Amino acid sequence: MKRVRIEEDFIGTIELPADALYGINTIRTVQNLSFSGQTLRNYPTYIQALAMVKKAAASANFEIGSIKKEMYDAINTACSEILSGSHNQHFVVDILHGGGGIGTNMNMNEVIANLSNKRMGGTIGSYEPVHPTEHINASQSTSDVCHTAIRMAIILSFQPLRAEIERCIKHIDEKAAAFQQVTTIARTCLQDGMQIQLGDTFSGYSAVIKRRLTSLEEAIEKLYQINIGGTVIGSGIGAPQAYRDIVVSKLCEVTGRPFCQRENLFDAAQNIDDLANVSSELRMLSSCLIKVAKDLRLLSSGPDAGFAEIELPAVQAGSSFFPGKVNPVIPETLIQCCFQVIGCDRVVQASLEHGELDLNIFEGAAGANVLDAMKMLENALSSFAGNCVKGIQANHQRCEELSNSFIPLVVKLKERVGYSAVSKLLKERGREGIKNYYNSGGEELDTNQ
Amino acid sequence: MKRVRIEEDFIGTIELPADALYGINTIRTVQNLSFSGQTLRNYPTYIQALAMVKKAAASANFEIGSIKKEMYDAINTACSEILSGSHNQHFVVDILHGGGGIGTNMNMNEVIANLSNKRMGGTIGSYEPVHPTEHINASQSTSDVCHTAIRMAIILSFQPLRAEIERCIKHIDEKAAAFQQVTTIARTCLQDGMQIQLGDTFSGYSAVIKRRLTSLEEAIEKLYQINIGGTVIGSGIGAPQAYRDIVVSKLCEVTGRPFCQRENLFDAAQNIDDLANVSSELRMLSSCLIKVAKDLRLLSSGPDAGFAEIELPAVQAGSSFFPGKVNPVIPETLIQCCFQVIGCDRVVQASLEHGELDLNIFEGAAGANVLDAMKMLENALSSFAGNCVKGIQANHQRCEELSNSFIPLVVKLKERVGYSAVSKLLKERGREGIKNYYNSGGEELDTNQ
Amino acid sequence: MKRVRIEEDFIGTIELPADALYGINTIRTVQNLSFSGQTLRNYPTYIQALAMVKKAAASANFEIGSIKKEMYDAINTACSEILSGSHNQHFVVDILHGGGGIGTNMNMNEVIANLSNKRMGGTIGSYEPVHPTEHINASQSTSDVCHTAIRMAIILSFQPLRAEIERCIKHIDEKAAAFQQVTTIARTCLQDGMQIQLGDTFSGYSAVIKRRLTSLEEAIEKLYQINIGGTVIGSGIGAPQAYRDIVVSKLCEVTGRPFCQRENLFDAAQNIDDLANVSSELRMLSSCLIKVAKDLRLLSSGPDAGFAEIELPAVQAGSSFFPGKVNPVIPETLIQCCFQVIGCDRVVQASLEHGELDLNIFEGAAGANVLDAMKMLENALSSFAGNCVKGIQANHQRCEELSNSFIPLVVKLKERVGYSAVSKLLKERGREGIKNYYNSGGEELDTNQ
Amino acid sequence: MKRVRIEEDFIGTIELPADALYGINTIRTVQNLSFSGQTLRNYPTYIQALAMVKKAAASANFEIGSIKKEMYDAINTACSEILSGSHNQHFVVDILHGGGGIGTNMNMNEVIANLSNKRMGGTIGSYEPVHPTEHINASQSTSDVCHTAIRMAIILSFQPLRAEIERCIKHIDEKAAAFQQVTTIARTCLQDGMQIQLGDTFSGYSAVIKRRLTSLEEAIEKLYQINIGGTVIGSGIGAPQAYRDIVVSKLCEVTGRPFCQRENLFDAAQNIDDLANVSSELRMLSSCLIKVAKDLRLLSSGPDAGFAEIELPAVQAGSSFFPGKVNPVIPETLIQCCFQVIGCDRVVQASLEHGELDLNIFEGAAGANVLDAMKMLENALSSFAGNCVKGIQANHQRCEELSNSFIPLVVKLKERVGYSAVSKLLKERGREGIKNYYNSGGEELDTNQ
Repeated sequence: MKRVRIEEDFIGTIELPADALYGINTIRTVQNLSFSGQTLRNYPTYIQALAMVKKAAASANFEIGSIKKEMYDAINTACSEILSGSHNQHFVVDILHGGGGIGTNMNMNEVIANLSNKRMGGTIGSYEPVHPTEHINASQSTSDVCHTAIRMAIILSFQPLRAEIERCIKHIDEKAAAFQQVTTIARTCLQDGMQIQLGDTFSGYSAVIKRRLTSLEEAIEKLYQINIGGTVIGSGIGAPQAYRDIVVSKLCEVTGRPFCQRENLFDAAQNIDDLANVSSELRMLSSCLIKVAKDLRLLSSGPDAGFAEIELPAVQAGSSFFPGKVNPVIPETLIQCCFQVIGCDRVVQASLEHGELDLNIFEGAAGANVLDAMKMLENALSSFAGNCVKGIQANHQRCEELSNSFIPLVVKLKERVGYSAVSKLLKERGREGIKNYYNSGGEELDTNQ
Repeated sequence: MKRVRIEEDFIGTIELPADALYGINTIRTVQNLSFSGQTLRNYPTYIQALAMVKKAAASANFEIGSIKKEMYDAINTACSEILSGSHNQHFVVDILHGGGGIGTNMNMNEVIANLSNKRMGGTIGSYEPVHPTEHINASQSTSDVCHTAIRMAIILSFQPLRAEIERCIKHIDEKAAAFQQVTTIARTCLQDGMQIQLGDTFSGYSAVIKRRLTSLEEAIEKLYQINIGGTVIGSGIGAPQAYRDIVVSKLCEVTGRPFCQRENLFDAAQNIDDLANVSSELRMLSSCLIKVAKDLRLLSSGPDAGFAEIELPAVQAGSSFFPGKVNPVIPETLIQCCFQVIGCDRVVQASLEHGELDLNIFEGAAGANVLDAMKMLENALSSFAGNCVKGIQANHQRCEELSNSFIPLVVKLKERVGYSAVSKLLKERGREGIKNYYNSGGEELDTNQ
Repeated sequence: MKRVRIEEDFIGTIELPADALYGINTIRTVQNLSFSGQTLRNYPTYIQALAMVKKAAASANFEIGSIKKEMYDAINTACSEILSGSHNQHFVVDILHGGGGIGTNMNMNEVIANLSNKRMGGTIGSYEPVHPTEHINASQSTSDVCHTAIRMAIILSFQPLRAEIERCIKHIDEKAAAFQQVTTIARTCLQDGMQIQLGDTFSGYSAVIKRRLTSLEEAIEKLYQINIGGTVIGSGIGAPQAYRDIVVSKLCEVTGRPFCQRENLFDAAQNIDDLANVSSELRMLSSCLIKVAKDLRLLSSGPDAGFAEIELPAVQAGSSFFPGKVNPVIPETLIQCCFQVIGCDRVVQASLEHGELDLNIFEGAAGANVLDAMKMLENALSSFAGNCVKGIQANHQRCEELSNSFIPLVVKLKERVGYSAVSKLLKERGREGIKNYYNSGGEELDTNQ
Repeated sequence: MKRVRIEEDFIGTIELPADALYGINTIRTVQNLSFSGQTLRNYPTYIQALAMVKKAAASANFEIGSIKKEMYDAINTACSEILSGSHNQHFVVDILHGGGGIGTNMNMNEVIANLSNKRMGGTIGSYEPVHPTEHINASQSTSDVCHTAIRMAIILSFQPLRAEIERCIKHIDEKAAAFQQVTTIARTCLQDGMQIQLGDTFSGYSAVIKRRLTSLEEAIEKLYQINIGGTVIGSGIGAPQAYRDIVVSKLCEVTGRPFCQRENLFDAAQNIDDLANVSSELRMLSSCLIKVAKDLRLLSSGPDAGFAEIELPAVQAGSSFFPGKVNPVIPETLIQCCFQVIGCDRVVQASLEHGELDLNIFEGAAGANVLDAMKMLENALSSFAGNCVKGIQANHQRCEELSNSFIPLVVKLKERVGYSAVSKLLKERGREGIKNYYNSGGEELDTNQ
């Protein structure tokens, strides 16, 4: 028989597993507000970030005398345990539950309170001596706790994503260098154009990803401005001035990172454009990655009926139908990932647009979608860089043939005799006539172009 | 010296051109609410639709005794003149002005009032005996007038659009039939696949456009349900019951079309999902057209370095740089048009999402974007059908070569000996070995596939 | 020590858990193409649908003599076991892996093959006598299997969603009836307007959701047209004609549902607009639900500083900060859910737009997002209907006060004396003067409006 | 009788108005590629930018000896005339025509050539001695000309937009200062919250617009990196090295602005993310403006049945139905404008996503939508700042009442006695009991919060 305990609130009583570290507020949220199938436990960086905020707040509350030493020690230890990841299974609220994040904050408050009370000799579910709102949430509100923690979580999640983007750039750069000697054909409007070095095309891929990364980094950088101490709407009501003076520096201590307080805390509570900015950057990066991935598909199309200028590494059978067919499954996976990121950004746009008055209650939804987008990109880029880009080979023979086909030849002629003259030649002699004219050497041609 | 007249409202006085048929309410809207650069005069079907609504309303007001015969005749004649298009230049409000369409309705009310007064011996700007709100707007509100008229305008605008879509389908069908004898290669994931008839590919283009057209027609059909008589919020307040009983039938008379009243008029004022539905259909049609246009670009890519299975008609020089280069400019124009339609739909989505309470005040914005999308599609499809699709030629030699390249051959082998056996052959003998095996006839092959 | 087995493909060997029912193709997909964190096992209706397709295909293959009785029995039993849900944990590919669904199809093929071989006395990983591609995938391709199964999965998932939408409509209808006696104020542009029955406002909510449901049902209905038998691109290559003649009727038998074959199978492989159509419907439904949920927030705003015409049931503490504050957390959760649905639709739009040539390889991404959207809506509506709408109370006193405030009074006066007269009165006597005039009864007023 | 002239190309002959400065290439584009109803003549900053690029190119061509002094003088004078705006009516191509901008470039080439020939004693339509492609387009391609010019046009268009944004900020700042003494109620989740200074709320509006402006400026700044000299794909083919060495500095001379060449010209031709970045910034600014405009609507809702904390200036009658009703028409207009900007951004997203290979041919579509968005925002903000924000008044009495209503009182109590104690009091004594308790002074309350 499963052991249970009973908790009560102003609505009634509820039964919980006896050893659940969360409490009735968490359960209410689970019951009323779950819909996405994704729970907080799947977002370990967000759990960590929340625990660090609580740790910093407890430290500040202790320093100003709001909580006693013994209680502070218990809370601090509880936060450390959570930080280590050992209680993740107790974070059961839906990551996207509505209500401005109350369930997330209360889930954390209840888990810390129960852990602290256990340590102080109390029992789970008693909320004595440590109370979730009176002590764990002291001087805080859901608003400033979640605002601060979601930005921290994004900052934490950016590290592995950046590493994968950089790896991707590195492998593309290698290809840009390796293919610098490969002359092939450029196309505009998909029609044959002039000669180009295959490496130049790849250098464009690298350049755009680098630029988007730099821009994304700048967007992430802005998240270091947080609003802890502003409580609900930025006025700081409910938080003693002494606490507000030190909580940000406590957060810097706890995290080892240079957080600072937003200049205008009312602005911070009203607006989530800094999150939307990160999301926009992720979307633009994704749109550019889609272009690169589509190019790789196109350039590797064939082998006989396509462009066939490059070959992607074969990583698995591409078809349940064609023996020996190898499809560009990794670029296609990256494209699908990028579609999802664009979808996430659409949600963030909605969250931004529907903000109102003194608190944007959709901030949590925006943050969760940013975290999702980052994680997916990290995963997809990891395979793209290592299993695809790294192994791309140029098809030298095909490239040489294409680079010497009709249109590039016409372009060379034009370099010497001008647009009108070539147009006239083309009209008079036709395609074959031009080729003969060119090859006969009747015209001294500059072949260095 | 330009002659002017003065009009006055509760805010102050304003100078108008002496012969302007609009009045001070129109000017206020122009001054306060213009931003898009597009005025009502550029939307002749919407002007017509508004005039027809006013005509029907006047007829109903006359029949119930709200206005006298002489005034009715004057109003009716004024509406007829407007319907003929001869006063379009007096519709000067921004098509997208905010405020729920008040400016649009007042622009129409003022023009009709001035025209009517002129006819009845009054002067422009006097608003006697005919008053814009007392008489022209009698029993109506901006809400039900604009709701009804914008739907009528869309219905009117659909006729020429449908004709162009049908022409497009017709030309694609011709190609599907003509290319039924052309065997070429199909690709999946851009990699070489099995044989296909080029006509079968085109039959898919035709099928999807037909399906989207049918679905669009169904969406348009729903717009015949309108709310004239519901006044502001659907309760009909301000409109005598006798008027409400007959105004829709008057509208049917005036238009010769089967309009009917919405079942729930409160719903009609609250919700614009019927417009959003039309917009969604236009977007889906556009997304499918993008795919078709991109396919034509890809299939005509080359001539030497691309797929080169078809040739698009050359309609103009494709480049300021390459003599003799002919780009797929018409498919590209269609693609850009479709992007704009998708942009319009994004606006309509916002208009729908941001509705509130008993009246969606963004209905006019939604309607204008639908009209824009329809007009652009009509124009782009006209050129696409007539100047591009109609003249597409198959490149028979290229198609035959591709259809007999390596992978289609492997597929044929697989049909006979199975996936595993071909995989094994491929591993043992390689690409050339397979070809020799196939061509040697050592294996009796079914070439009818 | 964990027991393992080794499998091999053209790339090399790989180690699997000895009792894994999936094989090397599945593992390759997991390793190369995973990014979303969501695996097929979380989509039980899709697993069921795939199993039913395989069951129908096996039945057809048996009937035409492609597989023997014993093998058919083994396959059929394996499919039945999978249908019962008992092997869900073996469906480990990423739901969004790229490559057009090859991993999904191969995961299913391998699980069925291994189960069948076990039953026939073989061993897991031997793929004898039953081979994943030779036998389980016989006469099929990833393309037609996944196309068919994803549509079946959506049809299956629609049932519980529809039930929740209908429950939501039912509760709103109850409120519309109950509030028919409550007179309150309507607002346009958020400014005070005329009287309205609170029930009329709610009737608009019900009407729009009903209409969207009907439209969604029509979109779902179209998914019964599937393409099994068309194999890769619709030509049916690889499937014997005898199989193609019966496989759809086999599917009807297996599922008890009226599936039929698409008229043009090339069209079916090229285009996913039928999925996009369902997604558009879900998005429009969501946009309308956002409006309803926002209205409930606004109408229940207060208690002192808002509209306060209704009260939502208190389901949990609304704030970690304010004692006694009860926030509209359930409508806010519904709004967030609808944002996610809109995000899913953005992905589906991308999947549609980026289709190309003879096979849209992003169909699986589109389908997965539709399934996600449906499940989330089902969950959020369940709580919205049962925990929120059902318990809404009207604030009768407040409604009465508002309905008799200044502007509704002016509207009543206008009904009697006309727009101009009231404008004049207003200018001369001001707001208080009008009230006195009205209340003094100096004017005989029609209070039945 | 209208005088005409005949021009000829490889397709055939065409009749033009005898004095048309454009030629047959322009007409082909008009006939084949028009759909949007918007022509280049409506984009004067783009015409100017193109003329400046042509001027700089001519100067460079002259300096390296590609064209003679007399021809250079003629071209230079022609460009100056165009810059002055006197030939705008001859720019007749659709702003959104497809084909990568060929029509735009050729329209400009033809107008300059005809003007130059007139000056040099030639005739319109002769294209001698000055030829549109040989001389006006010398060392250039559509690709680098339009890339450079569209960025210049955006830079030019930003000046008046910035002025309007800054004016908007200025007026909001004035209100933030003026309302600093007005205490009112804050709401979260639309439910009553704690006291706030009305000025603090407005300071949040100002802060977010300032931040978005700074971010937009950074995005604009990046457009100074252009690719003139790179010709079609960045390789510079067709342009002599001597020309390429000086053309950017010529552009700086002509414009007086610090343009510089992109580091990687292949990247510049491939990618339009710098344009997409500007568009994203415009979208985010718009989303934030939507929020501000919605807040103003909500805070001014009423007068009796809404929040009624502020009053917007009455700029026109708000209704054709309600005498004396004044609606928030200017905020609503701004909202609609912002919807359009979001729609424009959706188009730019599509243009970015659908880029391919060595040249993004949708750059012109992206640029035109950015120009549209900027112009619309400039217009709407002009009215919003001057006609709305500037005149906002606080409703002092209402604010004071709200700030002393029940929930703010509870918050004050909580500050003193804690969350649990107030919860208990609330449960025991109810709402009225709390009020009495508070007002009796039985508890010493800190009223400075």
